[in-house]
Amino acid sequence: MATKTHHINPAVVYYTFGPHPPILHIHPGERVTAGTVDARNWDETGEQIPESRRQAAPDTRLRDSNPQIGPIYVEGAEPGDTLAVRILEIKLNRDWGWSALNPGFGGLVIESRINGPTGLNAALPEQFYRWELDRERMRGRLLLPNSRLKHIEIPLTPFLGCIGVAPRFGQVIFSMAPAEHGGNMDSPETRVGTMIYLPVFVHGAYLFFGDVHAAQGDGETGGSAIETTAEVTLEVNIDKGKHIGWPRFENDDYIMATGSTRPLIDAFRIAHVELIDWLVTDYGFDRLEALQIVTQAGAARIGNVVDPNYTVVAKFPKQFLPL
Amino acid sequence: MATKTHHINPAVVYYTFGPHPPILHIHPGERVTAGTVDARNWDETGEQIPESRRQAAPDTRLRDSNPQIGPIYVEGAEPGDTLAVRILEIKLNRDWGWSALNPGFGGLVIESRINGPTGLNAALPEQFYRWELDRERMRGRLLLPNSRLKHIEIPLTPFLGCIGVAPRFGQVIFSMAPAEHGGNMDSPETRVGTMIYLPVFVHGAYLFFGDVHAAQGDGETGGSAIETTAEVTLEVNIDKGKHIGWPRFENDDYIMATGSTRPLIDAFRIAHVELIDWLVTDYGFDRLEALQIVTQAGAARIGNVVDPNYTVVAKFPKQFLPL
Amino acid sequence: MATKTHHINPAVVYYTFGPHPPILHIHPGERVTAGTVDARNWDETGEQIPESRRQAAPDTRLRDSNPQIGPIYVEGAEPGDTLAVRILEIKLNRDWGWSALNPGFGGLVIESRINGPTGLNAALPEQFYRWELDRERMRGRLLLPNSRLKHIEIPLTPFLGCIGVAPRFGQVIFSMAPAEHGGNMDSPETRVGTMIYLPVFVHGAYLFFGDVHAAQGDGETGGSAIETTAEVTLEVNIDKGKHIGWPRFENDDYIMATGSTRPLIDAFRIAHVELIDWLVTDYGFDRLEALQIVTQAGAARIGNVVDPNYTVVAKFPKQFLPL
Amino acid sequence: MATKTHHINPAVVYYTFGPHPPILHIHPGERVTAGTVDARNWDETGEQIPESRRQAAPDTRLRDSNPQIGPIYVEGAEPGDTLAVRILEIKLNRDWGWSALNPGFGGLVIESRINGPTGLNAALPEQFYRWELDRERMRGRLLLPNSRLKHIEIPLTPFLGCIGVAPRFGQVIFSMAPAEHGGNMDSPETRVGTMIYLPVFVHGAYLFFGDVHAAQGDGETGGSAIETTAEVTLEVNIDKGKHIGWPRFENDDYIMATGSTRPLIDAFRIAHVELIDWLVTDYGFDRLEALQIVTQAGAARIGNVVDPNYTVVAKFPKQFLPL
Repeated sequence: MATKTHHINPAVVYYTFGPHPPILHIHPGERVTAGTVDARNWDETGEQIPESRRQAAPDTRLRDSNPQIGPIYVEGAEPGDTLAVRILEIKLNRDWGWSALNPGFGGLVIESRINGPTGLNAALPEQFYRWELDRERMRGRLLLPNSRLKHIEIPLTPFLGCIGVAPRFGQVIFSMAPAEHGGNMDSPETRVGTMIYLPVFVHGAYLFFGDVHAAQGDGETGGSAIETTAEVTLEVNIDKGKHIGWPRFENDDYIMATGSTRPLIDAFRIAHVELIDWLVTDYGFDRLEALQIVTQAGAARIGNVVDPNYTVVAKFPKQFLPL
Repeated sequence: MATKTHHINPAVVYYTFGPHPPILHIHPGERVTAGTVDARNWDETGEQIPESRRQAAPDTRLRDSNPQIGPIYVEGAEPGDTLAVRILEIKLNRDWGWSALNPGFGGLVIESRINGPTGLNAALPEQFYRWELDRERMRGRLLLPNSRLKHIEIPLTPFLGCIGVAPRFGQVIFSMAPAEHGGNMDSPETRVGTMIYLPVFVHGAYLFFGDVHAAQGDGETGGSAIETTAEVTLEVNIDKGKHIGWPRFENDDYIMATGSTRPLIDAFRIAHVELIDWLVTDYGFDRLEALQIVTQAGAARIGNVVDPNYTVVAKFPKQFLPL
Repeated sequence: MATKTHHINPAVVYYTFGPHPPILHIHPGERVTAGTVDARNWDETGEQIPESRRQAAPDTRLRDSNPQIGPIYVEGAEPGDTLAVRILEIKLNRDWGWSALNPGFGGLVIESRINGPTGLNAALPEQFYRWELDRERMRGRLLLPNSRLKHIEIPLTPFLGCIGVAPRFGQVIFSMAPAEHGGNMDSPETRVGTMIYLPVFVHGAYLFFGDVHAAQGDGETGGSAIETTAEVTLEVNIDKGKHIGWPRFENDDYIMATGSTRPLIDAFRIAHVELIDWLVTDYGFDRLEALQIVTQAGAARIGNVVDPNYTVVAKFPKQFLPL
Repeated sequence: MATKTHHINPAVVYYTFGPHPPILHIHPGERVTAGTVDARNWDETGEQIPESRRQAAPDTRLRDSNPQIGPIYVEGAEPGDTLAVRILEIKLNRDWGWSALNPGFGGLVIESRINGPTGLNAALPEQFYRWELDRERMRGRLLLPNSRLKHIEIPLTPFLGCIGVAPRFGQVIFSMAPAEHGGNMDSPETRVGTMIYLPVFVHGAYLFFGDVHAAQGDGETGGSAIETTAEVTLEVNIDKGKHIGWPRFENDDYIMATGSTRPLIDAFRIAHVELIDWLVTDYGFDRLEALQIVTQAGAARIGNVVDPNYTVVAKFPKQFLPL
């Protein structure tokens, strides 16, 4: 029997993760295909979506930033389960992207847009960069004719900046913030071929995704990646009764655990304790031995240092897992 | 004309700050009186309130902790305004309180209950302490007959651990977390006689309060204050068109600004930038001169170092304000 | 028999804490009186001390900042002992002080002078403020004729910004940095009448002091207090075999423990663990009960948030100590 | 003319970075070959070096940990210059290594050995692990017969845990701590083929190196890598008049800048500002454009999260540098 794929084009997008009215109900094993809208509300046609499609409370700062596709209600998902979402495709559907310097936002500035203000220095000037995306050769080029950067071609490695579920405690969390529910982790690991494991906090899980990045360095230091849109296909399953503490990823080479909080060291710590828990629970390691082997063979990757919470991904090579 | 006072006994309590169905609508200038429920759901009778009264999503961790009275819809409050709430009375209505050591929660432990787990050390053992509250003499005594602490009497200085409004961006935030909307700031400054200024993010503001502490040291280091209940009376006004960034307090001696985030230094920074903004905007100081005078004459007080965000209160003595 | 007092006027000052050639040898119980030099090398006459008196390696940044009187070799002090230094007098000996905004230095700016640079924002402009010190009335006034600040009089509460010993591990630490050895704690608690307890790491302890502040708010937020000079008298004793982890203070009302590190929360944690250790070791508290009573009755005070390490002082009221 | 190589076997090792009596004077362009001693003082013969060879002040905690080869006085190096040290060889000279869990030390524990104690949780139990190093196949194997880890073979990628110079301000810094002078950066990037650039603070630079790691994961999370010894050969040059702020690395693929401080986010920030400065100064990038390209194509690698300061290495691919 063929796997059912839901092709959707939702009437609304959301700017928060929470148990909003679902735009779709699916069963485990089914697939969803949808086009995303970029972090400043441009869709694949290059038009900004109308106000009427934006489901967010009006506000004075960062209103309507970072729209998400969802929520998708997954039948049978209950608190304590794990949602297993495989990223089958992230097909770039626009020949341009953008990046920007938002004054008061980013890893190397006095913050004032989301957190803060955290200091008295004057903000950096606002910048907007348009990137040409060559989808044949999968290269991005910054359109700055008089700049040293004009000849630089960045390899495109599209990924989902955001994927997550409705948070615990009935919370509704802004789409800029990653946390236990996933959200804006901005990790290049959430790319095609990766399995995303998300803890379920609410009946139906309420899956969201969006914020496609064509490329991004570690930390998303300046505050925005090469932001664009894609047609995304996910396959959704449930690991019934499987409990995890934080989002986890898995690809052919690594098992990975995430931590998203501030300060950065605590994101590192959370991700590594979660990874060690995984090694102990699923692979039979002793806890302190798991710490040892992670110490010598683990890798750590910084997702972002710009969002309300920072994200660290702790990685363990599958080659070192017991058979 | 007499000020109208609403005496309420709400059918439900909430465990999140957000635009929930209001339990009351009031007009500016009116007062509200209500009895609070303590952080573990005991009310003034010493009974835990029934499940049916608890408006929170079920969850595996810290479910139903820290109930709030509200939301109260304030007619005329609009985003960009400031809600001015005077604390008229916090009348302790129970002759006991409690404090506790929750494993995985607190400022001197590996965290695992709200944030984390942030490390591998074993948790401390759970502890529960019952305090006798002498409301005549306003003294609290820990009931530990074989302990060094048995003769210690702590002066009672009741305050609201939580006061806040519906957060911005349409977010719904757990009652354990303080942020721009106020919430669980755990500052002993939110006591009788203090004016609390809160930024309005949503039409109607949606005021909440609760979590009465009979006493607490700076930082609430162990994770819980002397937790109890009180009959609280507030007077609510609106400063139309007055914009503030973070909650502010004012009493006879100090103007005060808060910052609630992690890391602690950023809570310090946010509170102090907000305080300096206040000095510049309302009192005509030059910005760098305001920094100077705060540097020499300001005080800083740590609210909590245990909640999902930490709170710092930056204080400036009114004796140094220009006439 | 009269207590011996050494009146000294050392030929050199030091810009680091370490086991340098002692300027004086004393025995326990003796006193030392010396005039300090301020953080920019002005002495009590208002002249900058000559280069020849400055014992520091030349360097491109912050050379010769924050000179110290010392080291004083205390006969009989051995690693594992505690040096007990009572501050008998801090007699202001100049009728002016200064404060400043050093670009790239301070709690509310992108740092670049000591740590960093930690960001890309432009630095704030350099500022220098001269304060008139009325030593009769013990009031300080900022000399800014066209400013809102001109009528503000700050009460003077002189204290030692720096007091400390040679660090452990044979380290030599810049006089801007506080740590386990004391140093630049910038705590208003190190004032007349306070007993300062310092851990001894090196035979002879090698005591230093200096950096007199006429007044300072919590955090020394802008980066410098009201900097001036004083004639300082200390009485030095040894608590043989008494081990402490971090500097401690004691006055009539409080026992106090310090922590100096980054991040700020760890300074808070260290200070509080040290305070709890004190309550357990010297006053017979059970460890978790000590945590409880500190949670309800403790106070925390931020020394500085501007130095290479931040300082927090954890305070416990002596009224709650067992008899 | 052949390059001169100094084969040395110093009579003493040092546990601090500072301007100690040089063990060797060299001229720019010369090479040094020496055998290192591991972090617990075992040399290549498997014997612990005698007390008489250890140049460190006795102390109660972590005495004599992490010995260094040096200082090497480089003729002609002056403050403001850059020392350019190429790592020519790190030849493992022992068939075993060790790792350990030191209670109170590491990234996932309450700290108490170097910093702290930062909390009240009980320490983890001490552990010592012996690793068999197969130098033919360059594989390490943990000798734990009853463990899941017994079949795991870690690829060996030897590097210098420590390399650095005498710090600025005349400071003497413990060999456990990385900072502006380099030191215990614990970065796997300091391996054969890498050029290490170090800022010179003192005439002669005073170069040190040691602490060979046979392998290590990102963060050195548990507190120690696979610690061993090697015969190390370095070539030392001076970039006269070239000023850098923090240690930099360069290999065939990347230019890299380091930041070493706490908190971790500031190590990240410092490393990235230093990297951007490099792109601006040496490669002609505009500052904000450099930020943009780093944001999209940069990599960040965490050296350690266990030392007194944490280290982050910010990397930029040379393929994106202008020709």
